Order: sequence, then structure tokens, then C-alpha cells
Amino acid sequence: MRYPSIPSAQLLVQYCKALGISQVVISPGSRNAPLIIGFTEDPFFTCYSIVDERSAAFFAIGLTQQLRHPVIVLCTSGSALLNYYPAIAEAFYSDHPLLVISADRPPYKIDIGDGQTIRQDHVFHRHIGYSANLKLDVSHATNTVSAYEPEKFREGIPVEELQREIDTFNREEISRAMEALFTRSLPAHINIPFEEPLYNTVDDHWFDLTDVRQPQKEEEDLGDLSVYQEKWSRAGRKMVLVGVMPEGTLDSRWLEELASDPSVLIFTETTSNLNHPNIIPSIDSIIAPIEKSNRRVEKFQELQPDILLTFGGLVVSKKIKAFLRTYKPKHHWHVHENKAYDTFFALDRHFRCLPNTFMKSFVQGIERGRGNYQENWLRVRDRYVQKREEYLKQIPFTDMWAFDKVLRSLPKGVMVQLANSSTVRYAQLFDMGKHQAVHCNRGTSGIDGSTSTAAGAAIHFKEPTVLITGDLSFFYDINGLWNQYLRPDFRVVLVNNGGGGIFRILPGKEDSPNFKTYFETSHDLNAKSVCELHGLQYRVATGKEELMTALDDFFKPSDRPVVLEIKTPAELNDRILLSYFDFLS
Amino acid sequence: MRYPSIPSAQLLVQYCKALGISQVVISPGSRNAPLIIGFTEDPFFTCYSIVDERSAAFFAIGLTQQLRHPVIVLCTSGSALLNYYPAIAEAFYSDHPLLVISADRPPYKIDIGDGQTIRQDHVFHRHIGYSANLKLDVSHATNTVSAYEPEKFREGIPVEELQREIDTFNREEISRAMEALFTRSLPAHINIPFEEPLYNTVDDHWFDLTDVRQPQKEEEDLGDLSVYQEKWSRAGRKMVLVGVMPEGTLDSRWLEELASDPSVLIFTETTSNLNHPNIIPSIDSIIAPIEKSNRRVEKFQELQPDILLTFGGLVVSKKIKAFLRTYKPKHHWHVHENKAYDTFFALDRHFRCLPNTFMKSFVQGIERGRGNYQENWLRVRDRYVQKREEYLKQIPFTDMWAFDKVLRSLPKGVMVQLANSSTVRYAQLFDMGKHQAVHCNRGTSGIDGSTSTAAGAAIHFKEPTVLITGDLSFFYDINGLWNQYLRPDFRVVLVNNGGGGIFRILPGKEDSPNFKTYFETSHDLNAKSVCELHGLQYRVATGKEELMTALDDFFKPSDRPVVLEIKTPAELNDRILLSYFDFLS
Repeated sequence: MRYPSIPSAQLLVQYCKALGISQVVISPGSRNAPLIIGFTEDPFFTCYSIVDERSAAFFAIGLTQQLRHPVIVLCTSGSALLNYYPAIAEAFYSDHPLLVISADRPPYKIDIGDGQTIRQDHVFHRHIGYSANLKLDVSHATNTVSAYEPEKFREGIPVEELQREIDTFNREEISRAMEALFTRSLPAHINIPFEEPLYNTVDDHWFDLTDVRQPQKEEEDLGDLSVYQEKWSRAGRKMVLVGVMPEGTLDSRWLEELASDPSVLIFTETTSNLNHPNIIPSIDSIIAPIEKSNRRVEKFQELQPDILLTFGGLVVSKKIKAFLRTYKPKHHWHVHENKAYDTFFALDRHFRCLPNTFMKSFVQGIERGRGNYQENWLRVRDRYVQKREEYLKQIPFTDMWAFDKVLRSLPKGVMVQLANSSTVRYAQLFDMGKHQAVHCNRGTSGIDGSTSTAAGAAIHFKEPTVLITGDLSFFYDINGLWNQYLRPDFRVVLVNNGGGGIFRILPGKEDSPNFKTYFETSHDLNAKSVCELHGLQYRVATGKEELMTALDDFFKPSDRPVVLEIKTPAELNDRILLSYFDFLS
Repeated sequence: MRYPSIPSAQLLVQYCKALGISQVVISPGSRNAPLIIGFTEDPFFTCYSIVDERSAAFFAIGLTQQLRHPVIVLCTSGSALLNYYPAIAEAFYSDHPLLVISADRPPYKIDIGDGQTIRQDHVFHRHIGYSANLKLDVSHATNTVSAYEPEKFREGIPVEELQREIDTFNREEISRAMEALFTRSLPAHINIPFEEPLYNTVDDHWFDLTDVRQPQKEEEDLGDLSVYQEKWSRAGRKMVLVGVMPEGTLDSRWLEELASDPSVLIFTETTSNLNHPNIIPSIDSIIAPIEKSNRRVEKFQELQPDILLTFGGLVVSKKIKAFLRTYKPKHHWHVHENKAYDTFFALDRHFRCLPNTFMKSFVQGIERGRGNYQENWLRVRDRYVQKREEYLKQIPFTDMWAFDKVLRSLPKGVMVQLANSSTVRYAQLFDMGKHQAVHCNRGTSGIDGSTSTAAGAAIHFKEPTVLITGDLSFFYDINGLWNQYLRPDFRVVLVNNGGGGIFRILPGKEDSPNFKTYFETSHDLNAKSVCELHGLQYRVATGKEELMTALDDFFKPSDRPVVLEIKTPAELNDRILLSYFDFLS
């Protein structure tokens, strides 16, 4: 096998291998050649070539979202690296261990007017677990020593000794970055400068990394939970709220334990991947009618919990946040292995562990509650489910009608990827996720990488992946389709309402003359040409019958990915959605 | 007229108006509504709506590149802002005063799990002139006071007084950002938090900004230049090297003064926008044959200058950099109003002023030199020009052949925008720019925004704009075509060689088995579908005759922009280019 001739490149590649990080998303370049060689020559690594770095990093998020293990994105020097930033912020807030590796020029060539050269160190300082800056090697290119470490060079320190110092320093830096990835699930950035020649190889590798161990995440020792168990057992109304959470995070026996307690009300979002007859999966359908009610305060007081227990990551529903910030629980406890946000300004305990670990200890000391807190609200839920069915029967072809039909048509076992922002909000209105895993980039809630993420997530998933997206997200991340790795069973449902429909349904906006241009950003693009560009099958539906026909065989096996574009009427969508909440009331 | 009801939004909009910043590139959002309203309601501002923030910021670079005046890019909260980073780095290194404005959530809502919320302050700290973080207003939303400034609130300070403090603070922050823009030509970032309601308006504005003055850039007082004039007059060999420089930066009389001195050799790049019979516009055509010569050292010594005088920004040619770093001049003086890079590790004087200011003082005290430094090298130049003509006659249809024909066909007066990186390198091989202004994003030399920049630059240019680009740049920045502002006379020449041909011609690469996938990133995309998507005319040429026919009417007036895709053979391109330098030798 061949290895790069540059020591730090070898060290980094070997280190990744020693820790079992095998997935590498590579964007082309010349400065990163030593690492491209290192990763692609070793069959241990699975490499993906993606040109647009913005898309490449989101593709890597898709991989790590599914593998729940660090994934590498590798780019060359210059502004390439900066295109990673949107995905890095998403990784930072969504606990994805993205390992960002950037090749760099030697330090003495920064800010002297060389091409494709910027300050690469610490560029992500606001959203990164660790920024490692490796030192330039001296042993393979001794002519650089004088420029790089002139003092040491003048002192006459032998090159071998200098290189040993550098090896030690680099190894420590890499290990700190790995620590952030493995123990805190945060993205980390390793910047690594290379001097030419870049393409040379050698036949053996030089580093013994057999002593390298994967850093282990430590959960909190929960100790005695009796104070909490007692509070819980005494409280009349407990609310459990679950945001983004990968499938399988909470064992069904613990969910059952919670859901069978009449004093516990469970609110979930579609991205929580939980399913039980006694949970309420469409939060806004409960809250919106209360907001409109003239018994608003009274009803909210009835809903207000004594204790709020939360699992998972970010919550989509703005309404539940507004409600809980006003009608605060006495206690808010969050269970998460990494972090806890004080979303409702009421957080008084973070259990730093996995939900299963917490539940295992917690349930042993709690008593089942009494009362009809759950029962009452489940009745409200049953009523809105029934009303929703009625409503869906009478509405015309619109976003809401289409979402319902698309969600109903999803085959069992497929993975659903939701784009931001209308898409994920519409999805919350329906019961979904009973038979499908559901994911969405809710760390930053950006529209910038949904397609790329879905493409990456699909790679290792055993069943097909369905991306449901809106027109702005789809065209924004158009380069998410520019790669050789789209699986033939990849499916895209594009709900195209000709602009950012989301701004129509957010509270507060007025119909100013500039609305269409600067808020909604109306456009008349369609996805047909995009499919031609990337060799995908294209289907379109502009009405009820067409959509039903299209859905009939949309999920059947095909030799290429398929995009189904559903063209809905922008202004009607708005009216139908807003009337829905009136109808529920 | 209507104004936003939020004081800081009003203040910022009025401040921009007071300084004559009228161009605003807006990406859609809700959090930035107060500013969208502020800018779009006032006819003083010209607003552009562009969805993809990466493209929007490069579009703004195009505007500022032509107007040489600050231009605003405005986005909503969340990862939107991070998509600006590639353009901000370009602006930082290319002296474009880009004013980045990001709407933000109130500070107390950061890192608590709210959607579309990230740490927005100081995100660009490595490449920004100033990062201003405005304070949240209290007067329009008094309910936020308690959350935001709890201490002051408890102390019972009246809201009006608090707001006055905030106004003063914000005004000072804005003025520091403006300082960076106007006096240092650096990008600046203003982050501005808004509390809901966001869409309210009022009928009058509240700030008196009549005392606001545009910060003035100060040039260095050059004083007595006799030491430099004497050195110059005594030196036998003076080399003038000019990188990126907008047209009209150096008066023709000063160029004439330099070019008529037999001891002065002038190397320019196509992006320097200079033109004179006695200059050498294709540096590599001089250097490459010397590199291959067996009299290499001797010839380089003959070329080595005593004094190197440089104007303008970054230099494309790697060969001249390598040469001058090895054969250093005794003195390197750089003339630039903002900054000087020590590109050749020999800089001993930065004249911080405009080239015209410098030349006016400098030429008064210098004597014309003697000798045949210029003459000898002009003879070499004449020889390569002749050889180039010969070579072009005998080569097949390839990148090089196509570039020659395209450049010859350019109408007088059009503006040329070159993409990175093969494109700008190919362009250096030819005499161009005699009758056209030439621009290229050489600050970071990225492929990430060439199309967007060209689209923005075209807006205010009186003649048509021609973008010459490669396939990776074109597809990377595909969203550069997603806007309503492409002028019908906008032209794109896309040289599509099916992958990153640049990596074939850079020194050092070897033909590894992974080369095509990870370095060259071969693909089979074509631009036809992209044209369909965005409603552009499409032409294609795959051979000599087809290209000549296409060029015949390519620049004729049309009702839509036109893209001419030239499909060239990847591997042949490589051989023809490398053989060219052999042929010259």
C-alpha cells in the first residue's frame, strides 16, 4: 500500500483509522492531495467525492446522523473551508461529531498575497468543539525549516529532533479534537499545513498508534434520585415533551411506563420518533384552538404542568414554547447525554445521561399518579383527529391536502427526511412516524442543506429514503443532487408553492406591497430541468387525481432516483392552513 | 412613507442613507422584516432579492467591485449568515467594502433551543474589519426589559432613559463599522437583535443624522521621496509588477512614464487592466521557457530586478512568485492605499496611497535609466507572441484553442469576468484587456462565487458583461443564475472539460488511480438544463467550426442572457497546454 510522504498527513490518517472513523467526504483540491492519497489508498476508508463543500458537509451530516459515529469532511485550502460553516453550525447544535479537516499552506505563506490562501485557524470558533492547528512538518521538506522555525533552525537543532517535537505536538492536538468528537458529540476542526511536494508517496507508514484508545463518553452518575422521584410522584400533572430524537433512543418499556400513567401527558413531535396510543403527536393542534378560545387563560391553566420532563433535542413548535414560557412548570428537568437548554426559562435539573439510563433508575422509585390530566387531553386530541379528517375531506388541492396524502402513502420502514421550514411545520400537523424514522436538521433549522443531508443519510440505510422538501429548500441546496452516490431508491417529494410559503403562516406579517418580492420571494422555477441535469426521473402533480396516480407507483423500485414535484397554489395554501385552526376551535 | 417601528432598525437604515449606501441585497426571512421594510419602503434604496445567501453576498461583491462604494447584504437569523462567509473572505482580501447586516433574536434567546438561532456575534472574526453587535431596543417592547437587562430594570431606570443609552451605544457601534468600510475598504458586520412584533410600521422617523459625515480615507503623506527616487534612478533594472487592479487606477501618463524607460520592465496580468506596447502581459510565457532552459540560472539572473515596484492586489502567476522569491530584488516597494503583502519576502516599503498619488510625487525626482533590460525582454516577448500564433494555428480543438478564439471575439468595451481557476490561468496566456475591463475574484481565488459576482457586476455597467468560466465553477455557483436581475446582454462562456482540468496542469500531481474521482472530479453535466431552469438561451460548441459559428452572433442583442457551452476534450487539453511551454522554449 502507498502512504503520503508527509508525516503529519500519515499521522492524521492513521489516527482516524485507529479510532474507526472510516467515512470520508472529499472535495477536490491540490493542497489536500497528501490526505486524499492517504484516505483513498487505504481500503479501510470509504471515500465520497463531492465538489461543493457546502453540500459535502451536509452530506457528511447525513452519514453521521445515521451511523452515530464521527465522519470526516476534507477540503483544500482557501475559501473551500468556509463553505462548511452552515453544516458545522448544524452539527454543533444537533450533536453530530463532524470531523472537519482542512489542508493549509505553510503558516509563513498566509497573508502574503498567495492565491487560495486565507486565515484558516479558528474560523469556526463560535460553533466548534475544538480547533486543532497542526504544525508544519520539517523532515520531508527541510528547505522550509529556515522559513518556518528560523530560531530553532539557527540554534542548530537537528531536523529529526524538530520533527519529533512536531509529531508529539500534532498527536496531542489530534487527540484533543477526537475528545470533542467522541465525548461531547461536537464537531471538531483540524487544520493541517502542507509544503510541496504534495503528491509523493512512500511504501510504509511510520507511526505506531496501537496505544490510541477511543475516548469514552461518560454519563453522569445519577446517584440517589429520591428527591426527584418524590416530587414526581406527588405532582398532579406531569408533562413529557420530546423534540428531535433518533429512533430507538427511548425503549418502548419506558415509554409505556410513562404513557400508562394517567397524570402524565406526553407531547411529541414527528422528529421524536416515538409512537404510542397515549401520546399527542400534534402539539399545535392542541394549542392553536386554545389560543383562539375566549376561555384561553382557563384552558392554558388546565394544561400547565407541575413538572416538565424533556428528552431529545430541539423542539419545532413555537406554540408550545410560547405556552410553557408563560405558564411555566414548577420544575423543568431535561435528560440528555450532552447538553440542556433552558428553553422555557424554568430548567432546574439537567440529567446528563441517555434517556434509557435515566428511566431505568428513575422508574424504580416513582408511584403511578391519579386524576384525568392525560385522559382529558387525549379526549381533546381525539376530537381534533376527527375534525382533521373532516377538514381534509372538504379542502381543495393545497399543501395541506398534499401533505396528508403523501404521508399516508409512505411505505413502512422507509426513512423520512424533512426539510425546513414549511415542510417540517406541516408534518407536525399529522400523525406520522409510526412506521418510519423521521429526521430534520433542527440544529439551526436552516434551508441550506436538507437535500444533501438526505442523500448522505440514505447511503447506509437499509430501506429507501424519502426527502420531503419545499421549493426554496430544494433550489437552495440544488447541489445536494450533484454527486455520484444517490441511491436509485432515493425519493424526493417537492411541494412547490412558488415561494417561501412559510412567511405567510408566521404570525405578524402584513401584506405589504413588497411582500411577494422580499418575503415570499415568488419564483416560477420547476424541478424538471434539475432532474434532467442530474439524470433523475421526474414526475409532476398539479391536482388531486394526478397526485394520487403519481403516488401509486412512486415508491416502486426504479433504476434512478425519482423526484415528484407537487405544484400547489400559494395563496390558497395560506387560507386553507389558517382556516384549519379555526375549524379545530 | 412608512418606517419600521423598531428604533435600532430605523437608526441603521437612516445611517446607511446618510452615508449614501443605496444598494441592498436582501435574502428572505422573517426576523429581518424590520430592516426589509426600512430599506424597501424608502425609494432612496435599490433593493435586490436573492434567496441563496452565498450567492447574494457574491452578487453584492459584484456591485461593490463596480461602484467602489459600500454595498449592503441583509439576511435573517440563523445559518443564513454563515453562508455569507466565502464572500466575506473574498471581500476581506480584495478590499471590497461589504456591509453585512444580520437580524438576530434577542440575546436571551440564544443557546436556549430556539429555532433558527445561532451565535451570530463575531462569527467572521478572522476576516472582518469590524464586528458590531447592536443592543436590543427596549422602548417598543417593554416586556423584554426584564429579561434583557434585569438589573437596570430592577433599579427602576425609566425605559426612555434606557433606550437613549441603547441608541447612543448602537450609533457608536454603527459608526465603527462604517469606519472600517470607508477608511479601510474592509467588510464589516452589524448584528442587530429584534424582538417581536417585527412587521409594525410608523409614519415618521426619529433620528436626526444630519451631523453624520462619511469617514474619509487618509492617504499617507509621502513627504520627501528623494531616498527612493535616488535608489530608483541609480538602479539598472527596475521591474514593475501589477496584479488585480480596476480599470482607471493608474493614469496613462504615469504608465507611459514608466514604460518609456529602457531600464524598466513591466509585467502585468490580465486583471491589472493596463495596456501599453511596452508591457509584458503574459508572465508565464516568459518564465516557463526559462524554467525549462539549461541556461536557467543565467537567464533568471538576467531577469532579476534590483528594485521591484508593485501596484494592485493579488498576482495570479505562481511562476513569477517562485522566481522572485528565489531571485529576490534588493528592494520591494508596494503602492496601495490599504495594505501591502510581503509576497516575495523582500518588502521594505509600503507607500500607503493610490498609485496616481504616488506616481505624481515620485516621477518628479527620478532620472530615466539606460541599458537594454526592457528591450531584451520585449524581444523575448515578441518571439513568444509569434510562436504562440504559430502554435495556435496547428493545435486541435481544445481549451487553449477555444480561449484564443473567444478572447479575440470579445467586442470592444464589454466587461470580462473571469472565474477561478483554470479560466483565469488560461486568460493569462493571451493578450487581453486592451479593449475590455477584466475582473476576477482573486482575494481567495475561490470557485464559489464567480457567476454571482459577474451577475452583480453587470447591473450598473453600461456595456454588456461576459463571464468566462469553467465547468466546476459554473455548477458550483449554479445559484448565481437564480435571480431576477440578469441583464439580457449578460453572456456566459462556459468551457466545459468535464472536470477540474486545473489539477492536470498544476505541478507535482501524478496519475494515481484515484485521480479522476478525487482530484479531477470527472462528471458529465451539461449546462442545457441549467439554462432551461433559469430561462436563458443556450448554445453549444463541440468543435472548431461550431465555435466560430456560435461566436459570430453570440454578442448580438438578445431578449435573454445567453450561455455558450464549449465542450473540450479533457486529456487533450492537458497535453496541448503542457506542449505549449515546450514549444515556446
